[in-house]
Amino acid sequence: MNALVERIHGIVGPAGLVTPGEVAPYATDWRKRYVGVPLVVVKPATVPEVAKVVRACAEARVAIVPQGGNTGLCGGATPDASGSQIVLNLSRMNRIRAIDSHNNTMTVEAGCVLARLQEAAEEAGRLFPLSLAAEGSCEIGGNLSTNAGGTAVLRYGNTRELVLGLEVVLPSGEIWDGLRGLRKDNTGYDLKQLFIGAEGTLGVITAAVLKLFPLARSRATAVVALADPGRALDLLQRLLEGCGERLTGFELFSDSCLGLVLKHFKDTTAPFARRFPQYALVELSDTLTGNAVAGLAEAALGAALEANCILDATIAQSEAQASALWKLREHISEAQAHEGPNIKHDVSIPISQIPEFIRVTDIELARAHPGVRMVTFGHVGDGNLHYNVSAPEGVAAPAFVKETPAVNRIVHDSVARFAGSISAEHGLGQLKRDEIRRYKSPLELELMRTIKNALDPLGIMNPGKVL
Amino acid sequence: MNALVERIHGIVGPAGLVTPGEVAPYATDWRKRYVGVPLVVVKPATVPEVAKVVRACAEARVAIVPQGGNTGLCGGATPDASGSQIVLNLSRMNRIRAIDSHNNTMTVEAGCVLARLQEAAEEAGRLFPLSLAAEGSCEIGGNLSTNAGGTAVLRYGNTRELVLGLEVVLPSGEIWDGLRGLRKDNTGYDLKQLFIGAEGTLGVITAAVLKLFPLARSRATAVVALADPGRALDLLQRLLEGCGERLTGFELFSDSCLGLVLKHFKDTTAPFARRFPQYALVELSDTLTGNAVAGLAEAALGAALEANCILDATIAQSEAQASALWKLREHISEAQAHEGPNIKHDVSIPISQIPEFIRVTDIELARAHPGVRMVTFGHVGDGNLHYNVSAPEGVAAPAFVKETPAVNRIVHDSVARFAGSISAEHGLGQLKRDEIRRYKSPLELELMRTIKNALDPLGIMNPGKVL
Repeated sequence: MNALVERIHGIVGPAGLVTPGEVAPYATDWRKRYVGVPLVVVKPATVPEVAKVVRACAEARVAIVPQGGNTGLCGGATPDASGSQIVLNLSRMNRIRAIDSHNNTMTVEAGCVLARLQEAAEEAGRLFPLSLAAEGSCEIGGNLSTNAGGTAVLRYGNTRELVLGLEVVLPSGEIWDGLRGLRKDNTGYDLKQLFIGAEGTLGVITAAVLKLFPLARSRATAVVALADPGRALDLLQRLLEGCGERLTGFELFSDSCLGLVLKHFKDTTAPFARRFPQYALVELSDTLTGNAVAGLAEAALGAALEANCILDATIAQSEAQASALWKLREHISEAQAHEGPNIKHDVSIPISQIPEFIRVTDIELARAHPGVRMVTFGHVGDGNLHYNVSAPEGVAAPAFVKETPAVNRIVHDSVARFAGSISAEHGLGQLKRDEIRRYKSPLELELMRTIKNALDPLGIMNPGKVL
Repeated sequence: MNALVERIHGIVGPAGLVTPGEVAPYATDWRKRYVGVPLVVVKPATVPEVAKVVRACAEARVAIVPQGGNTGLCGGATPDASGSQIVLNLSRMNRIRAIDSHNNTMTVEAGCVLARLQEAAEEAGRLFPLSLAAEGSCEIGGNLSTNAGGTAVLRYGNTRELVLGLEVVLPSGEIWDGLRGLRKDNTGYDLKQLFIGAEGTLGVITAAVLKLFPLARSRATAVVALADPGRALDLLQRLLEGCGERLTGFELFSDSCLGLVLKHFKDTTAPFARRFPQYALVELSDTLTGNAVAGLAEAALGAALEANCILDATIAQSEAQASALWKLREHISEAQAHEGPNIKHDVSIPISQIPEFIRVTDIELARAHPGVRMVTFGHVGDGNLHYNVSAPEGVAAPAFVKETPAVNRIVHDSVARFAGSISAEHGLGQLKRDEIRRYKSPLELELMRTIKNALDPLGIMNPGKVL
């Protein structure tokens, strides 16, 4: 046995080492795009164990790949193929250390699965609002390290906004206890901000103090028909002005998206008797019980109809109807996959620029790649578009996938012209590590490297990711 | 003329240099506790001018003290007495560069006075929620550099939460353009977080993209009588659970605070016919017009009364009454000053710990300093207490002020035992720079120094502050 592995074995014991035959799931990313070969996969059970493992790796100059639920979409938690990096999987550290309902906080370990935290909050009569497709298996340490977004950002912010304190094992193996549960603390640099969204390149997040919110007790869900994305922005403003923080969801999808969902999911039905160019899925919620929020939705959408801002609207009359409307939005990704190969983009731009961005980028793509089919949808309330490009009818997967770099170039260059971001909510990982160099200023890249070198001078924390 | 001053004169012209006879207001802090002697006071008009001045100082190894409205309470913007530091005052850079109402953002220069930004937002039909006592003269660059709090934190967060992008002149004189207007951007380290709250020790913030919100169009204000601070927390939870984000203000003050206000402000009146131990000032607001929010306040407070959570409540029936109730809270600081010398503390602790913190710290202080009078109030919804200690009746100012270190020691040690912060919203500046070393771990101080040395290797940015 390698001397370092032997030392780690002494720290974590047999239960903390994955046997060679079981390593595969930890060595591959969720989308199966990256396959690595780890020196060893370590699953420590306590913070001191994490600290000792990191110190051992630092002394041996061996790189560490922190990993949670391994559901990331950019290969940020996959080791390289050298056989020299260790995977440090935090899944065994899954205790909820405390819930303080009068402080509206919850102190949790990195390995807690997100859905379990949502449930624990609800049992305490509170809401933990972070919500995303992988919530049944992703872990909060990964959510923190990628500053995850999801469906509740419009009202509650990204993961970064949900954190009051962190505990981090630094690249030296020291434990930084920043587990404060304070809403105001201006005593120097806000160090936790460095580790949130750093994708494990500056240290290993082992625990966090998270904010809790009041539970929503009434809800209204609607699908609205629109002439174009510009009207969607007008509707968004109307709803923000009229309904304020009650607006918890505002998703846009084009008729092509709806068409794919209706085609591939036989249990779905169109929201209107006729088809329209665009649709917005709107959700209002309130801490109050009763029908007030439904009445408000009706009044606001009625006024929008009268002002010719929208073309039609259907408001769910039951939980089942609300869930059926949400399915039209939630099934888009899978429907697109059934339809054939496609090239995905997770981009954000200033909300005001979304209609113009879609218009000019669609034109550029159609010119350069005749026949491509646009499947555009996303969290428009946050400026986040999943701007996806499907192959022209009849084009085979391999031929179209070869176009990925050329398509990315057009889309990402357009994003840059609109002062947007080429990774809104998924991070950089390995996937966009090279791509970002084209779009970030040399000065900003240098600042990032300065921070990296200052905090991780040996370069052992997740090398090959982000930077 | 000093060679550097001559060079700076060449960069900013005569309008950009304060003449020696007019330097005094820039050399002293707002509370007149620190008086410095600057080499020169520079008021650049543009970002390139700032960059050139910083570069000149870097080359000459001369320290820079960034300054805005100079209303800080910890001496963070005052030069030392050596005559060797320059004051870089940003007040001339006061343009609102853009308001994007569909993106709900405003791009502003550092020298904009906060009240002007509130007005500009309102003219655009939006709310910029940052609000604090100095808003008529403080500047947004200072608010950003101190991560200012204020009266709207409960609902909208600290200044940090209100920022999407920054423009910063780095200690090298390079300009970092991080002026993004995006709600989601996960492309590497979130560098803006470093400069927010750094009190000018890492660079000079020259502009920012700020978030705007829907305007509140109805409001309910009440003062509630309470038996003790524990009941205040129960009421806070009731209001959060029932009213959600409508709760925009939740301030607590003791009967001793009310007594001082009634004594020193003859135009104020007690909220109730009899006196109670504690009072909460509660404010609800909503984007909806009409009386819904007033009805909600009445119902929520009625239920609290029935449940014996509160002892009495008075709800304002007009704008004038609401403003009279707010005055009871707003006049406390000044009333306390009229009453004689006092020792102030701006602390935060987990909200759930506030009653116990007040109880045990009051006892400790009374033991060590018999006769001191507690004047405790604050933004309890944020866990932020202004825990102020007035001299015993008949004790002269100088004798009491001599007790400051001993009183601070008791209060701050108690804050530390409750896992709190000794500077909730005012920063460290010069005032608490030494004090913080007692309460932050050596590892955290070392991390802060690592960041400082990495970004400002020459140590020219606001030396002697924070670290």
